[in-house]
Amino acid sequence: MKTRISVIVWNEYRHERENAMVAAIYPEGLHTTIAQALQATPGLNPGALPLDVGTATLDELEHGLSEERLANCDVLVWWGHKVHNLVDDAVVDRVQKRVLEGMGLIVLHSGHFSKIFRRMMGTNCSLKWREAHEKERLWVVEPSHPIAAGLGEYFELPNEEMYGERFDIPQPDSTVFISWFEGGEVFRSGCCWERGHGRIFYFRPGHEAYPTYHDSNVQRVIANAVQWAAPRVNIVDVCPNAQPLEPISFKPGFTNVGITQTQADLV
Amino acid sequence: MKTRISVIVWNEYRHERENAMVAAIYPEGLHTTIAQALQATPGLNPGALPLDVGTATLDELEHGLSEERLANCDVLVWWGHKVHNLVDDAVVDRVQKRVLEGMGLIVLHSGHFSKIFRRMMGTNCSLKWREAHEKERLWVVEPSHPIAAGLGEYFELPNEEMYGERFDIPQPDSTVFISWFEGGEVFRSGCCWERGHGRIFYFRPGHEAYPTYHDSNVQRVIANAVQWAAPRVNIVDVCPNAQPLEPISFKPGFTNVGITQTQADLV
Amino acid sequence: MKTRISVIVWNEYRHERENAMVAAIYPEGLHTTIAQALQATPGLNPGALPLDVGTATLDELEHGLSEERLANCDVLVWWGHKVHNLVDDAVVDRVQKRVLEGMGLIVLHSGHFSKIFRRMMGTNCSLKWREAHEKERLWVVEPSHPIAAGLGEYFELPNEEMYGERFDIPQPDSTVFISWFEGGEVFRSGCCWERGHGRIFYFRPGHEAYPTYHDSNVQRVIANAVQWAAPRVNIVDVCPNAQPLEPISFKPGFTNVGITQTQADLV
Amino acid sequence: MKTRISVIVWNEYRHERENAMVAAIYPEGLHTTIAQALQATPGLNPGALPLDVGTATLDELEHGLSEERLANCDVLVWWGHKVHNLVDDAVVDRVQKRVLEGMGLIVLHSGHFSKIFRRMMGTNCSLKWREAHEKERLWVVEPSHPIAAGLGEYFELPNEEMYGERFDIPQPDSTVFISWFEGGEVFRSGCCWERGHGRIFYFRPGHEAYPTYHDSNVQRVIANAVQWAAPRVNIVDVCPNAQPLEPISFKPGFTNVGITQTQADLV
Repeated sequence: MKTRISVIVWNEYRHERENAMVAAIYPEGLHTTIAQALQATPGLNPGALPLDVGTATLDELEHGLSEERLANCDVLVWWGHKVHNLVDDAVVDRVQKRVLEGMGLIVLHSGHFSKIFRRMMGTNCSLKWREAHEKERLWVVEPSHPIAAGLGEYFELPNEEMYGERFDIPQPDSTVFISWFEGGEVFRSGCCWERGHGRIFYFRPGHEAYPTYHDSNVQRVIANAVQWAAPRVNIVDVCPNAQPLEPISFKPGFTNVGITQTQADLV
Repeated sequence: MKTRISVIVWNEYRHERENAMVAAIYPEGLHTTIAQALQATPGLNPGALPLDVGTATLDELEHGLSEERLANCDVLVWWGHKVHNLVDDAVVDRVQKRVLEGMGLIVLHSGHFSKIFRRMMGTNCSLKWREAHEKERLWVVEPSHPIAAGLGEYFELPNEEMYGERFDIPQPDSTVFISWFEGGEVFRSGCCWERGHGRIFYFRPGHEAYPTYHDSNVQRVIANAVQWAAPRVNIVDVCPNAQPLEPISFKPGFTNVGITQTQADLV
Repeated sequence: MKTRISVIVWNEYRHERENAMVAAIYPEGLHTTIAQALQATPGLNPGALPLDVGTATLDELEHGLSEERLANCDVLVWWGHKVHNLVDDAVVDRVQKRVLEGMGLIVLHSGHFSKIFRRMMGTNCSLKWREAHEKERLWVVEPSHPIAAGLGEYFELPNEEMYGERFDIPQPDSTVFISWFEGGEVFRSGCCWERGHGRIFYFRPGHEAYPTYHDSNVQRVIANAVQWAAPRVNIVDVCPNAQPLEPISFKPGFTNVGITQTQADLV
Repeated sequence: MKTRISVIVWNEYRHERENAMVAAIYPEGLHTTIAQALQATPGLNPGALPLDVGTATLDELEHGLSEERLANCDVLVWWGHKVHNLVDDAVVDRVQKRVLEGMGLIVLHSGHFSKIFRRMMGTNCSLKWREAHEKERLWVVEPSHPIAAGLGEYFELPNEEMYGERFDIPQPDSTVFISWFEGGEVFRSGCCWERGHGRIFYFRPGHEAYPTYHDSNVQRVIANAVQWAAPRVNIVDVCPNAQPLEPISFKPGFTNVGITQTQADLV
């Protein structure tokens, strides 16, 4: 049984190096803020494990996500925004493979348009948006979900970018949060899916122009999500040719030649 | 309101031209058998519309799926098996786009490993398999689903390839059929999903070595699925910057400069 | 195949007879307003059928829902508020039985606390509420759902009672609408479920103190919901003792005596 | 945070006292066998807690399920078969209330027809059945689900009663097991739901005429299910009148008199 959870917080890490306003909020990058918060936020649910948190960024070799590093990663947290297209498809393939084997994936805010999130969802992942420093109130729709542990009925962020419905996603397995926005929209802000053997959580807040990842409720949600998404198994994909478990009646009209050919054909 | 449904039955069309046993069952290709059956099978549910059925195959230009042809297609039926990798990614992108806009997609049998099905699901779509001419009994788990119209409690196929669980798919919105196999396995054989504005149905039977698509129950299921998957809307993807519907309180600490930059950044 | 849909609009019909303000809005009862609107609102989706709309109220014999009348009802629309407890349990049993056989059920507004809705859900169906004449904006989260046909991205009601999350319901099969309220809450306002062979739709708006059922968007939603919930089958419940379809190996250690006793025992 | 899980195994306890064959398999009642197995089976997942297991039976005062005892119960395991109708409705109400507050509920085999299961589901919970000492093979459809921990791809029971589809239940949140039966049927044998704040698991095997609850795989499943269903919260139902969180525009045409009356009306 696992005794620790290995986490990588991945960040595009461009805004913080190019925009003074963003740099003032996240001087070492928002990945560093999130990683430090995770390290400092113990789990609240039974079975919560201690975390080993590292980071990775776009401009590192292989975006910091080598085969070996991903092989040892339990939960990957993803933030990207303006250069999703620069993420190498081979790395996206690699992350998808690991999620399907059991690795957790937490996608934050503008990561809704990342290659990996769109890959896992199969949809466009579009939405409405507006950057107007407006109030967001996140309502807890599933208070017994582990990701809602330690929260009240709602929490507020005084200034956030607005994301509004329709959010083009497959229906979530659970919708933990629904947001109310000052400007009049609503949004499914905390959404859970299972894909393969892995768990995926999308969490809406986190525009780079606001100190959202310094907020203690936001930190609590991400910490809970990491615990929730930690792998329960690690199962490598196969598509086996299976021997029968019961006798199959002999069918004289068929020959085994066809079978052998067909086995070879299967991808 | 639509008055007809335009259908394309797509086939890899290799086995039938390379294997005499398969050619004997489907001399003009299984796409032709399916298309003729669809044309001859009226819908049973209220709202059923007449069909205009065409076909397309891998070796045609653009696999027979040009932009223009797909733009006018309501439901695409897909059969592929041994050369999934030869399907052009640009055509896969195009089909995905149309499904997300509202086009229906029916994936048959070995199409579980097609690029388009894996793209829509986000998973490996693996399973167990065995070719042993064995009996399959498909149980109707959701008798009130439109795809089950006209069927009894179950129907049987005397000889089929076995597909067994675990089938690596996202949990279906509805599981219409579960199969019992002579050799001891079970399988979720009729699965429905919604992705974007389109409906997707996976239907298990249809190994090329058996006359499955000549079976009247199988034909009934595919005809029902086409009616069920016909588009209800046609909505092209956008990710709009939305004006507020309610007044937003003035926040003196923020400037609009940041907003303009960020809009430009969004993918 | 059915050619018409038989609808009963059921109303508690107390507020309208006891409160002048409500009577001014719905002089013949809100059931009459809804029934007239349904009769005048043709369906927009393929397969839409003409409606035969009647009404029933609490103070009629058997609440207007005799065995015979329900047996011929395709879709039942339900509005109740202050005397849910006066609904006879035998009538609730009868309605549940019909829904499970295939009859549609549309539950409106304060019907969230009706015996029949709680029976079908298995939960408390609690929520937050406030009557403050506030603006409600209903966002269309699933624009391709038949219940959203003919609507824009959202519609507004200038004055409504607020219902807020957490709404204690089983996760809906589809969530068509999410409401934004002026006072700061959100709510899953249009929820679909399947139970047995019947379809259930809960639609939030409709406090008796406001002219909500005179609103054309609200009328459109209820009309769409009636078409969506119309039965596709009528299957009476059984729990049959089934003969085997395959040979079962003889087990010398067991006798049939036990079997016979057990069959008689089963409820 | 909880450190132990309090479990009650409830049994109708009639067959074992009336039928020598059943008594030979379960001399102290099948509740005792299950309780002893639970006590002896440590959890496999992170967060597994030690169990305190007691039992209760139909013929005890209040069926052994007093208000106080249920208030301290974390997970209730339920087995009943031939006298479901003798369970007091007041006790059913009490159990439902506790599940909605967060208590776990594990329903075994013929408990599919128990009052409490039908109450939680809202459906008939009917199925096909046959008692013919036949082989059942349970396939693990969701190998990463906590309830499947420690199992292989499938497990078998040499002699069981057959339950076949269609099983009249709301679509499960997760379907962990699907059974293959020797006589030709299939069944969704391990089904999960959330209702209110509680988790419910239905597990098919366990006919009283066979030693099913002595089987180590069956014991493993029940032990896993108890850990999975242990409460994460304990939230008592309310339906609060909520004060607005945002200013609401003054509407001169409305008065507060109506509001006060309506508050009193709400159930």
